[in-house]
Amino acid sequence: MDTLQIKNILSEFQLGKLAMEEVIDKLRVLPYEDLVYAKIDHHRMMRQGFPEVVYCEGKTVQQVVGIMEHLTGLNRNILATRASCEMFEAVSKIIPDAHYHELPRLITVEREKRAVDEKRFILVLTAGTSDIPVAEEAAVTAEIMGNDVKRVFDVGVAGIHRLFAQHELLEQANVVIVAAGMEGALASVVGGLVAKPVIAIPTSVGYGANFGGLSALLSMLNSCAAGVAVVNIDNGFGAGRLASIINNMR
Amino acid sequence: MDTLQIKNILSEFQLGKLAMEEVIDKLRVLPYEDLVYAKIDHHRMMRQGFPEVVYCEGKTVQQVVGIMEHLTGLNRNILATRASCEMFEAVSKIIPDAHYHELPRLITVEREKRAVDEKRFILVLTAGTSDIPVAEEAAVTAEIMGNDVKRVFDVGVAGIHRLFAQHELLEQANVVIVAAGMEGALASVVGGLVAKPVIAIPTSVGYGANFGGLSALLSMLNSCAAGVAVVNIDNGFGAGRLASIINNMR
Amino acid sequence: MDTLQIKNILSEFQLGKLAMEEVIDKLRVLPYEDLVYAKIDHHRMMRQGFPEVVYCEGKTVQQVVGIMEHLTGLNRNILATRASCEMFEAVSKIIPDAHYHELPRLITVEREKRAVDEKRFILVLTAGTSDIPVAEEAAVTAEIMGNDVKRVFDVGVAGIHRLFAQHELLEQANVVIVAAGMEGALASVVGGLVAKPVIAIPTSVGYGANFGGLSALLSMLNSCAAGVAVVNIDNGFGAGRLASIINNMR
Amino acid sequence: MDTLQIKNILSEFQLGKLAMEEVIDKLRVLPYEDLVYAKIDHHRMMRQGFPEVVYCEGKTVQQVVGIMEHLTGLNRNILATRASCEMFEAVSKIIPDAHYHELPRLITVEREKRAVDEKRFILVLTAGTSDIPVAEEAAVTAEIMGNDVKRVFDVGVAGIHRLFAQHELLEQANVVIVAAGMEGALASVVGGLVAKPVIAIPTSVGYGANFGGLSALLSMLNSCAAGVAVVNIDNGFGAGRLASIINNMR
Amino acid sequence: MDTLQIKNILSEFQLGKLAMEEVIDKLRVLPYEDLVYAKIDHHRMMRQGFPEVVYCEGKTVQQVVGIMEHLTGLNRNILATRASCEMFEAVSKIIPDAHYHELPRLITVEREKRAVDEKRFILVLTAGTSDIPVAEEAAVTAEIMGNDVKRVFDVGVAGIHRLFAQHELLEQANVVIVAAGMEGALASVVGGLVAKPVIAIPTSVGYGANFGGLSALLSMLNSCAAGVAVVNIDNGFGAGRLASIINNMR
Amino acid sequence: MDTLQIKNILSEFQLGKLAMEEVIDKLRVLPYEDLVYAKIDHHRMMRQGFPEVVYCEGKTVQQVVGIMEHLTGLNRNILATRASCEMFEAVSKIIPDAHYHELPRLITVEREKRAVDEKRFILVLTAGTSDIPVAEEAAVTAEIMGNDVKRVFDVGVAGIHRLFAQHELLEQANVVIVAAGMEGALASVVGGLVAKPVIAIPTSVGYGANFGGLSALLSMLNSCAAGVAVVNIDNGFGAGRLASIINNMR
Amino acid sequence: MDTLQIKNILSEFQLGKLAMEEVIDKLRVLPYEDLVYAKIDHHRMMRQGFPEVVYCEGKTVQQVVGIMEHLTGLNRNILATRASCEMFEAVSKIIPDAHYHELPRLITVEREKRAVDEKRFILVLTAGTSDIPVAEEAAVTAEIMGNDVKRVFDVGVAGIHRLFAQHELLEQANVVIVAAGMEGALASVVGGLVAKPVIAIPTSVGYGANFGGLSALLSMLNSCAAGVAVVNIDNGFGAGRLASIINNMR
Amino acid sequence: MDTLQIKNILSEFQLGKLAMEEVIDKLRVLPYEDLVYAKIDHHRMMRQGFPEVVYCEGKTVQQVVGIMEHLTGLNRNILATRASCEMFEAVSKIIPDAHYHELPRLITVEREKRAVDEKRFILVLTAGTSDIPVAEEAAVTAEIMGNDVKRVFDVGVAGIHRLFAQHELLEQANVVIVAAGMEGALASVVGGLVAKPVIAIPTSVGYGANFGGLSALLSMLNSCAAGVAVVNIDNGFGAGRLASIINNMR
Repeated sequence: MDTLQIKNILSEFQLGKLAMEEVIDKLRVLPYEDLVYAKIDHHRMMRQGFPEVVYCEGKTVQQVVGIMEHLTGLNRNILATRASCEMFEAVSKIIPDAHYHELPRLITVEREKRAVDEKRFILVLTAGTSDIPVAEEAAVTAEIMGNDVKRVFDVGVAGIHRLFAQHELLEQANVVIVAAGMEGALASVVGGLVAKPVIAIPTSVGYGANFGGLSALLSMLNSCAAGVAVVNIDNGFGAGRLASIINNMR
Repeated sequence: MDTLQIKNILSEFQLGKLAMEEVIDKLRVLPYEDLVYAKIDHHRMMRQGFPEVVYCEGKTVQQVVGIMEHLTGLNRNILATRASCEMFEAVSKIIPDAHYHELPRLITVEREKRAVDEKRFILVLTAGTSDIPVAEEAAVTAEIMGNDVKRVFDVGVAGIHRLFAQHELLEQANVVIVAAGMEGALASVVGGLVAKPVIAIPTSVGYGANFGGLSALLSMLNSCAAGVAVVNIDNGFGAGRLASIINNMR
Repeated sequence: MDTLQIKNILSEFQLGKLAMEEVIDKLRVLPYEDLVYAKIDHHRMMRQGFPEVVYCEGKTVQQVVGIMEHLTGLNRNILATRASCEMFEAVSKIIPDAHYHELPRLITVEREKRAVDEKRFILVLTAGTSDIPVAEEAAVTAEIMGNDVKRVFDVGVAGIHRLFAQHELLEQANVVIVAAGMEGALASVVGGLVAKPVIAIPTSVGYGANFGGLSALLSMLNSCAAGVAVVNIDNGFGAGRLASIINNMR
Repeated sequence: MDTLQIKNILSEFQLGKLAMEEVIDKLRVLPYEDLVYAKIDHHRMMRQGFPEVVYCEGKTVQQVVGIMEHLTGLNRNILATRASCEMFEAVSKIIPDAHYHELPRLITVEREKRAVDEKRFILVLTAGTSDIPVAEEAAVTAEIMGNDVKRVFDVGVAGIHRLFAQHELLEQANVVIVAAGMEGALASVVGGLVAKPVIAIPTSVGYGANFGGLSALLSMLNSCAAGVAVVNIDNGFGAGRLASIINNMR
Repeated sequence: MDTLQIKNILSEFQLGKLAMEEVIDKLRVLPYEDLVYAKIDHHRMMRQGFPEVVYCEGKTVQQVVGIMEHLTGLNRNILATRASCEMFEAVSKIIPDAHYHELPRLITVEREKRAVDEKRFILVLTAGTSDIPVAEEAAVTAEIMGNDVKRVFDVGVAGIHRLFAQHELLEQANVVIVAAGMEGALASVVGGLVAKPVIAIPTSVGYGANFGGLSALLSMLNSCAAGVAVVNIDNGFGAGRLASIINNMR
Repeated sequence: MDTLQIKNILSEFQLGKLAMEEVIDKLRVLPYEDLVYAKIDHHRMMRQGFPEVVYCEGKTVQQVVGIMEHLTGLNRNILATRASCEMFEAVSKIIPDAHYHELPRLITVEREKRAVDEKRFILVLTAGTSDIPVAEEAAVTAEIMGNDVKRVFDVGVAGIHRLFAQHELLEQANVVIVAAGMEGALASVVGGLVAKPVIAIPTSVGYGANFGGLSALLSMLNSCAAGVAVVNIDNGFGAGRLASIINNMR
Repeated sequence: MDTLQIKNILSEFQLGKLAMEEVIDKLRVLPYEDLVYAKIDHHRMMRQGFPEVVYCEGKTVQQVVGIMEHLTGLNRNILATRASCEMFEAVSKIIPDAHYHELPRLITVEREKRAVDEKRFILVLTAGTSDIPVAEEAAVTAEIMGNDVKRVFDVGVAGIHRLFAQHELLEQANVVIVAAGMEGALASVVGGLVAKPVIAIPTSVGYGANFGGLSALLSMLNSCAAGVAVVNIDNGFGAGRLASIINNMR
Repeated sequence: MDTLQIKNILSEFQLGKLAMEEVIDKLRVLPYEDLVYAKIDHHRMMRQGFPEVVYCEGKTVQQVVGIMEHLTGLNRNILATRASCEMFEAVSKIIPDAHYHELPRLITVEREKRAVDEKRFILVLTAGTSDIPVAEEAAVTAEIMGNDVKRVFDVGVAGIHRLFAQHELLEQANVVIVAAGMEGALASVVGGLVAKPVIAIPTSVGYGANFGGLSALLSMLNSCAAGVAVVNIDNGFGAGRLASIINNMR
């Protein structure tokens, strides 16, 4: 609810079109839709430029379908993360143009292709092949939010020449996302090479003293390279969202 | 065993109705029922105003059925938590009026509707839709213990106007329960808005560095808002029980 | 800012006493005082019934003095926690009636003795002698907020008859606070005996696998007794504040 | 290999019955049987009074069968822990008198009933019903090693009178084993009541901030009652073994 | 308060020497002395055969002095642990025969030399020289409680022949205490050699991934040798106390 | 060493001005200065637009002075972090225009005031007063790298209206830095309000279950608001550096 | 890409066989093969003497097959770790001479038997039978890289004579690998006996406070025996690889 | 005690020069010197080629002096680690040729310069300047054990060209030691470049989520580069010792 809306409400009140109680009500209730089990934040589109994204884990299939249905009513493009195959099948019955990305487990509905500035692209790197699902979550997220994304997979530090061969892409990219598990060293090496925002995603790839991604997480937080920021373990969506915000700054 | 009971025993002893050995016995053995695998604490009804609640996890189906059977013999209302569907089916064969709450996995037997003071209600909030099962465990627990409960789901801080829209309920509530996973910030925000007891339940909703609910737990324990107390991760029952105790204080 | 205040503002606006811009301003800016390094939340007195409490750790002596000075200007009773001796000395120069509680490291200014209902008292228990500083933080907090407090120290479970000797106090108390370090078992035992709110404070008393209070914290969070809620390690203030809120409910 | 055996070897050497190389060999190779995947420590019977106990987890069915077969050849009584149902079935084909204890997942072969001193019994307590499988592992272990064992289940501190009702057993027992999950407070309470060895087994019963038994483990390690020692989480076998050693001291 | 005492009370009641209220009182109040900041458990001498031991950490000098003074009034032998030099000096002013053990930081008062059975001795081993202070806490504790103690220091597994040279002592000892830091392997090796109770004390000796004794603690809890029980990190007192209890069993 | 430099080297080689060995050498050795104890990365200015920043912790005073001396020789503006007072005094003897920022413990040398675009400012928020030193580290870092910075301190969620009063600044800022300790909830609330990059700095402000900043760190990593990235605990420098990179993107 | 290759490129450039752009390209792009989802590091054979090893966990069956197919095209011997049975079946369809090692879950292709120096063998020890799968991963890795390997299983410290019986093998071995779970004490004991490189592999064998191998890991890191180095929990491959490197040093 | 010694003993026995009891004694007691507080393992020189190294932390000054005195009696070269300045001063009074290395806190006595093969050198790398003390502990340890050591400091991945400039040293070295704090990425990068043993030392350099070296430790354990083994945090001695063992293999 922006200042303009407040002005309009007050004007109507001044003109007697609204009673005092109505004004109080309106000032209090910002726009969202209440499904009891979920309050869909339609205001988010205005506030943040993209509708609320549905985090599917822990929701029932019915809840996911219900939320998706209401979101599609008011928005052109929608994203749901961590969706099971079963959820997608139920959603696609009521939203036939929904699309399922199997590896990153995303559901997208894209009815309006956003214009993309190809000179400003986001580069998504992975250290290994096993990090691809998380990287794809980041890449698809950034794409549906209107960004050009380039992917380079499997350039971890055990064979560091594979990374250096990408130096042109590194130099041209506007924002870099690095997804790496195990010791997550790739983020520090990339952060030391470029002067751009580097968003590091620790992945849970690994075993033993990796403790579900903790090793890569701590590694990235302690990066000796400045300019590296970190999101949650396996949080491809968060990295893609932040990269998109930065990439669209002018 | 309260003072009155001790007086009675001593009187009977003084009158010669009880031998010394019998008195010693009675003073030692407070009332509980021994099923070998469980000692049902019938005294708890007297001591705490509600019969022993059955925690089903780790028990066999037969044990749950046995304990429920003995509890129903002496009590009007019973609660069993973390019950599987299979347990409920076995229980319902001998207690046909048992009811299963699927989301929070509770079994209730409610033969005596307790009088409820609707002016004193407990408000149960969740940050997201995925926190609802835990919140329901709290809500149903409080209801069967004789409280009016109002539920408001999905008002997490990512769209904080959804919370502020509930300000009237927040002002009217007697006790507030907040169930939140991920970073659990909702508890602090609510704690900063009201001057009532806020019982925070960290939930295990989330992934990665959430470490099974640890992030929300630490967050809530470190709340900068005074007046917030915390129960175990996903412990809806504990929160509901404590809220009921507080709500019934005069 | 409550509904009444909003009504007044809108009335003045309707009467032409306030311009639209002024109303917008007033609706947005709730009252606080800005010292640059701190924004004193004078609104808190209205919102929560007690002025903002000063957490001194990590603040400079000058900052503590400055905040205390501004708080005393508008409030009768003030509380500052985790204050060093040096801070107190600087404060007492400008607030001569400030009082220092050495063990719990509190500064209090109490100009208005709040009426206390002696029938509704808060009972503060400790497991050992070393837990007394934390318990005193809770007790003094509750006292300055207008509660009668009774203290019973050193009744840990290694000599459990010392606790049972207090059964009358336990039965009469309205709210119970339990401060315990090491294994923190006292909270569970008390929680199993009474049907009142039990607020458990894990203390950092102990060594080795106590890990700075972690053992007592986990112990209390996992209490098998329902009706127990937990605050942060050594957080006497939080427990005292919550106990006061509960104790003043009617 | 005790001093007597060394003397015999040296005597034979002196008498020319053994060559120097043979003596060196014998002094080096203590008796065990080599199955390649396992070296069965037949010497343990002599060294510790009970044959090697088979820890089945992580072994293949074939390995368990092979080890059991060789152990039965030389010993009267055998114990295997953490055995699956499938393992038992395979074992019982070659050792028909093997017995399976379903709850604690033990296989026993008991061909020689050891004499038991009933005046010196081991008391096994649990805090709850869900702790019974671990407690049974301790109890059966102690029984096959020649001890009288008494069991009292479900006497946790949430209803502490259930424990006090057992005071006679507590006074008569020679060694006490306490199995408790959640906050594990029972160990401290028992340790404070008696002056006997208390062996505490933290169990993984619980959820959330119980972290797989960590809460009970830390609780028991930090017990304010002296005379309590702790074994690994869910390690019923270790507790039973130690209790047996202590109980057989004269 | 044992059965005999209860019988006496009831007899006096029957004879009219005690009023009902007095009986109730006596049955409830077990004997302890209340110094407000401490409740001295004089009953412990009867219950556990040794008076309450004073844990000095976190207590003020005045509190330690006060408690020691009251304990000496009723007991012959006293022990205080984790006492600073300053505490000892204050104590020795009122208890001139108090003795300070500098390395283990113990204060002892020993007015009655307990008879010791030299055939039943406790063996205290350390892995290194740096573990000696903890080992001495255990040894002195066991000595004042009436045990013969033998010490063998610096026999860690990096030079395992130093341990094997002690095999006669190992065979003769009744109970073995092992204090070891770093990886704590000595406990497992000893536990594998003997069939006696082995009480393992993890010490905080070490650095880095030793995490304040955690490495030795986990190592000892996971010992592959049965018959090993563990006390808290650096808890020499607890180990000495338990060893004494076991050593005095008949 | 960019493509242009390689081209030049190869041209000189083709022209016979460089021998093959010289080319190999040049291609391998990128420019840095070797002080034995440090290799000053003069190339960083070219690669990342700001000279190497000196992390002083763990270095000797002599080492800091030596590195600073060499850096000033080739650069206009320099930054050293976590510098002690003693280090500054030694540095200022050879670099008289060095400046010490006491709260954030920074040394700056600023000989060339960079042009600043005031329409694109970085907003630095803190939850409390105790978070100011960390926030200042971020702010001064961003300033010396050529950014306009606005500071708003003490707007934590316990009095959330203090934050909402800043909504205009929030709307105008280009990048937002949030420094918060305890439960770190401010980052999520800000992240939910704006559609800009939010860089969250967990601080070690707090006690008990804050575990040196872990609670705020986990909280921020698990933020339910997208668009939030996290740096190391107390890492004001890293946040300031990243904010500067983002703020200077066009 | 070694110096020789650079010289050749530059010579060709000098001779006019290569254009400048081609040289720049060649200098930048070291040889690897790009399958999009994986960049096969064919250079590793030259750099490290063995082709890239395929870590199968987290890869799809198709990805594993694709990578194996490309690797076999250029190499004689190949190794894939943590391969499922299903992966092997798919691989064997296109590489019929692939071999599956079920226990350690390895796929090997061995077309060129490397010459082995039998005087220099690697000794692989396990503490128990359950550690064999990890030990086999190490052993097979070392074998395919051209080493003679001897295995001795189940010589843990609970029956330490089983280890001492192997003293000749210990004396003859060139490198020793120790795989042990639970408390991992075997590594320290072996490290104290020999003056050779001891590579310790903590395994996840155990339960409870073993925390997935953490106990053995910390134990081995804190070994009081010098000359012991540690790899990740269950990382047989890493240990085998390092042992092979050391064993092939001259 | 090697086979030769056993043969000699047995020969003397056969010849009647030794009685049976004497043989048994000799076979049991391997040579060490007993100072009560320490058992000096003189056998270690024979077993491992270097006398016992004195770990000073936790020892008293007197103990260190005593042990050093006895060691110098029988050995030419001695090493003591983690020695305080005060310890050195006391030692130098009785061993005037002792030398103190201030940064790594080592005391060395070197009376016999071991012959060094300069073609086989150990390369010690650090990521930063603050890692030098740990690196020096490794370097000096390797030197006194008879190795040529080369040092290259401050080549961390934030300026990776500084590392690549050392490629000749990397290629020539026989063994590489990498000391790195923060995220410890240098170990992985080096491990990916060379085919030699890489011994990684995580250092405690860093702050916040570095948790005393945990981040570097986990990072190095999870290295994606094979051939990397890890020692304890800050354990320069262990790394130097292992490098020396490997470097002296033929």
